Amino acid sequence: MILFQNIRFLDTTLRDGEQTPGVALSTEEKLLIAQKLDDLGISTIEAGSAITSAGERESIKAITAEGLNAEICSYCRVMKPDVDYALECDVDSIHLVVPVSDLHINVKLRKDRETVRRMAMDVTEYAKDHGLIVELSGEDASRADLDFLKSLYTSGIDAGADRICFCDTVGLLVPEKTGTIFKDLSSSLSVPVAIHCHDDFGLAVSNTLSALRNGAQEAHMTINGIGERAGNTSFEEVVMALEWLYRYNTGIKCDEIYKVSRLVSRLTGIAVAVNKSLVGANAFTHEAGIHVHGLIADTSTYEPMKPEMIGRQRKVVLGKHAGKSSVTLALKELGLEADASQLNEIVSRVKELGDHGKKITDSDLQSIAETVLEIYRESKVNLEEFTVVSGNKITPTASVKLRLNGDNVVEAGIGDGPVDAAINAIKKAIAGVADIQLEEYHVDAITGGTDALVEVIVKLSKDGRMVTSRGARTDIIMASVEAVLNGINQLMQE
Amino acid sequence: MILFQNIRFLDTTLRDGEQTPGVALSTEEKLLIAQKLDDLGISTIEAGSAITSAGERESIKAITAEGLNAEICSYCRVMKPDVDYALECDVDSIHLVVPVSDLHINVKLRKDRETVRRMAMDVTEYAKDHGLIVELSGEDASRADLDFLKSLYTSGIDAGADRICFCDTVGLLVPEKTGTIFKDLSSSLSVPVAIHCHDDFGLAVSNTLSALRNGAQEAHMTINGIGERAGNTSFEEVVMALEWLYRYNTGIKCDEIYKVSRLVSRLTGIAVAVNKSLVGANAFTHEAGIHVHGLIADTSTYEPMKPEMIGRQRKVVLGKHAGKSSVTLALKELGLEADASQLNEIVSRVKELGDHGKKITDSDLQSIAETVLEIYRESKVNLEEFTVVSGNKITPTASVKLRLNGDNVVEAGIGDGPVDAAINAIKKAIAGVADIQLEEYHVDAITGGTDALVEVIVKLSKDGRMVTSRGARTDIIMASVEAVLNGINQLMQE
Repeated sequence: MILFQNIRFLDTTLRDGEQTPGVALSTEEKLLIAQKLDDLGISTIEAGSAITSAGERESIKAITAEGLNAEICSYCRVMKPDVDYALECDVDSIHLVVPVSDLHINVKLRKDRETVRRMAMDVTEYAKDHGLIVELSGEDASRADLDFLKSLYTSGIDAGADRICFCDTVGLLVPEKTGTIFKDLSSSLSVPVAIHCHDDFGLAVSNTLSALRNGAQEAHMTINGIGERAGNTSFEEVVMALEWLYRYNTGIKCDEIYKVSRLVSRLTGIAVAVNKSLVGANAFTHEAGIHVHGLIADTSTYEPMKPEMIGRQRKVVLGKHAGKSSVTLALKELGLEADASQLNEIVSRVKELGDHGKKITDSDLQSIAETVLEIYRESKVNLEEFTVVSGNKITPTASVKLRLNGDNVVEAGIGDGPVDAAINAIKKAIAGVADIQLEEYHVDAITGGTDALVEVIVKLSKDGRMVTSRGARTDIIMASVEAVLNGINQLMQE
Repeated sequence: MILFQNIRFLDTTLRDGEQTPGVALSTEEKLLIAQKLDDLGISTIEAGSAITSAGERESIKAITAEGLNAEICSYCRVMKPDVDYALECDVDSIHLVVPVSDLHINVKLRKDRETVRRMAMDVTEYAKDHGLIVELSGEDASRADLDFLKSLYTSGIDAGADRICFCDTVGLLVPEKTGTIFKDLSSSLSVPVAIHCHDDFGLAVSNTLSALRNGAQEAHMTINGIGERAGNTSFEEVVMALEWLYRYNTGIKCDEIYKVSRLVSRLTGIAVAVNKSLVGANAFTHEAGIHVHGLIADTSTYEPMKPEMIGRQRKVVLGKHAGKSSVTLALKELGLEADASQLNEIVSRVKELGDHGKKITDSDLQSIAETVLEIYRESKVNLEEFTVVSGNKITPTASVKLRLNGDNVVEAGIGDGPVDAAINAIKKAIAGVADIQLEEYHVDAITGGTDALVEVIVKLSKDGRMVTSRGARTDIIMASVEAVLNGINQLMQE
């Protein structure tokens, strides 16, 4: 097997990633991401494109001023003003992008190959004269004439370029073609060669790995694979494939990857698919069933690697495939025991709920188990009356009457909106008997009409114990109240 | 280049896909998906696992009774009762799965290789005796001893297996290794060989393509790549890579792919990432900027293929990278014209809004443009008063006082919840002057606290004209009212 060269990692979350429609990061947010990328051990951080705007330059300056270990880079077109702005931001290097396919040269730029070559050489020399590291990049290289591309790269190297990059701008490469190209480039050029892929056909990661196996020494990537259209190469997939499938030590702090993935998702607002490799919510989740049986014997039976390697944990959830072993495990956590026939009945009711596509929350399982085990536990908290008023000239106000340990408690609350007011009123009403915290409040996206079913899932805690519970109504306020009261009742049973 | 054999497509959306935690499809939903898969031209539909439950069998029976062109298949373990249940459902074929790695044989099954071989042969013979097509599948094949695996496959073929499948159960394959294995298998076995991949490292699609290039004649896939953990091979990516990157005619009705992707996402509730290849919301979306300039000259500059190939359309949105050409285009659609300096001002205000990460809706652009162009259009509709009451013993009730063409109109409405009541009240209030329909109501997922900012985007129509508008408040009801009134004002300006 061809050994990997010393691989450098260029992260372009802050440039290609930030070009995702609807994404805009503040200077503080960009700086925070840059710090985390630096902690991971990224070689180069492409911090933005200095010419874009004053705001963009402010962000790049904040990052270069931070004194990180990583090389800080600005994207530049082959134009001197782009380089001047990059210099103003005090970057270490530029990612200097020159269109190289005839389509881009003739149709987009309305120029010819030799003009473009001269522009690339001029700007490279100019940047080198000003002390910058230059990575000369061919845009749309996968549709370029390979002989012209190599000769342009050679001209660039003659002009002083330190590294060369091949951009598969619209994601048309396949792994075997990538391998052939990079074997050729890496053996015929005198500087390190990088690969920059887009994921339009889902092949960005394998194309990147193929380039690295064939002499490329640098990979361009983004966290979570975000970017324009289908996005760029996923950082986490390339790094973990190298580490785990090829046993190559990347030098990246892998156990921080999940945290950085969550941070980028939160700050950009780009949700990660539940079934995204490694960083998706389900990547290490198992629904109870025959597989969990295998997992109990040996976790490696149905797990590609230990989730802790990237800072995650295994999760087992109940659902329609629930089996006896998983339900027994979950009951034990609730402090409940069932005999064989009761267990059968509980499993069958859990499966029934799962058959309707529901995730089974702790309070769902508890209420099923208590029904089957004929444990009659009076609800500690019952909702007697609830009213909320809101409007454009009214402070959102809610009142609740709760039956609490046999007494009636009435309280009112105000809030930032009717849901907030409702939850505040409930919190005040139970404050005398229990200190319950709302740790998380989640509503799935609502699409359809204003009468769609709204499902609210909350996470509540009391003295360090945590439960999840659900409310589902067409009325978002009542769904929220229901979820919170279900959770409170469960926490107060102990 | 090695030519592709006649490739068969086995879709396991209804089995592997349905094993995604939290997914449960009804018989009607499964039947609908099966019909659409059949329309696409899928060779085999794996409709479920007959032994699982009575409900599962009911669904499989509904599908086999439909008389589709596709072969209908049930998953079976190497146990005769599994085959009996499959026969009861009248399927054409079984996907007969036998654990083949020592890890799965010894640790999960607590058996040995020869026992497993005998089980596989017995059940294969039993199924063949009952007239079934048998696809014998090695579970965890990528961690199995390859000599044992081949010898087990050969035994299975001797017992009558019609096809062989290699399962990369936890997604550990890499493309070059996959190629070597399939060259070996396809040349040494006398029946067609299939590949079944999982996407734990993001390599399922490229591994599948590598197998097909090296003699595999069938690929297992799911729509949108759904499935346990990181999911399975994405159907749409493999098919379009074959069609567009390898110019292989799959026989699949590609221009129906996007519709089926949306249907599966809607029925399973598994959202597709915005940056998912081909079927993600952004896959053919361009944010206005220099790229749109290239796109106007020739769409292929920044597009991997024509979106119409899979039944989609190109979308250009405004945002922080907005440029003059894209804003001019958008203004024209609103019937507005701006001179050079006005255009500069509009572009800069659009960019400013985009800098805060906002998608620019039609009403955003209209209000910016009208301000800059000093078009004073009095709002036709102004909100004077709005009140809503809701609770557990109250019918959600809203009242509005609107200033409408100079008059005050007061109306009240009830609804399924306070949002529904509010929108109903507004609709009633304006019914006399305009017939406005709410076409779409969308709220992004809310995570964090009950005081998080809620963004509501609505699509309204009047006499066939459609506009989008936004409301953003911490109060979901007020955000909804604001969004609807913004849209109504825009529609009533005409």
